[in-house]
Amino acid sequence: MDDFNTIAQQFVQFYYNTFDSDRGLLAALYREHSMLTFESTASKGVNDIIEKLQSLPFGKIIHQVATVDAQPSNESGGIIVMVTGALLVEGEEKPMSYSQVFQLLPEAGTYYAFNDVFKLVYPA
Amino acid sequence: MDDFNTIAQQFVQFYYNTFDSDRGLLAALYREHSMLTFESTASKGVNDIIEKLQSLPFGKIIHQVATVDAQPSNESGGIIVMVTGALLVEGEEKPMSYSQVFQLLPEAGTYYAFNDVFKLVYPA
Repeated sequence: MDDFNTIAQQFVQFYYNTFDSDRGLLAALYREHSMLTFESTASKGVNDIIEKLQSLPFGKIIHQVATVDAQPSNESGGIIVMVTGALLVEGEEKPMSYSQVFQLLPEAGTYYAFNDVFKLVYPA
Repeated sequence: MDDFNTIAQQFVQFYYNTFDSDRGLLAALYREHSMLTFESTASKGVNDIIEKLQSLPFGKIIHQVATVDAQPSNESGGIIVMVTGALLVEGEEKPMSYSQVFQLLPEAGTYYAFNDVFKLVYPA
């Protein structure tokens, strides 16, 4: 079993590669009780979450991860992952900073996102 | 019982008021199994966490919270809280953006921070 830092890194890499190539495929990373809060708008369940992600008003997007920090979130193998980075949206010249937190829960040898909170972070 | 959003708001307000007035008093908000990752440096347990916070190389600091988003983190009343905001450190002219995530766990009618991850967020 990899340690939580390795799992966090692998999840983050897979998540953003998938997001940036075909957002719909992120469905595999959520479950019916998963929650997404995207810019303070809440969605719950795979369908609502993917619908929200698909509806975001940009086409091509590139996430550039700057930092990944992880901690165990419970005694059952859960992991809290906090990401900071930049994203560049097609048609925009300037990247934006963001922060995103996941709680990953183990299931059948893999992990899914039970919690997902995304926020743009504006310059202070 | 207040809902998780209200609890998150109350915790965040209390946490930063305490941080900005007397960091040592934050000991009440952690337990022996609590974890803090501050700018990617990990501490565990009340004593290590408070020692880390007390050792930070600034005196007076002011946190200005911009956003607070919360989700239930388990079926036992846990709450994930993500904060974005700005902090102004004594002697520095320019505020810095930050993001911080907590997992709050209930205990005897109150909540403590089991997970705490803090990161400065730099302009993209």
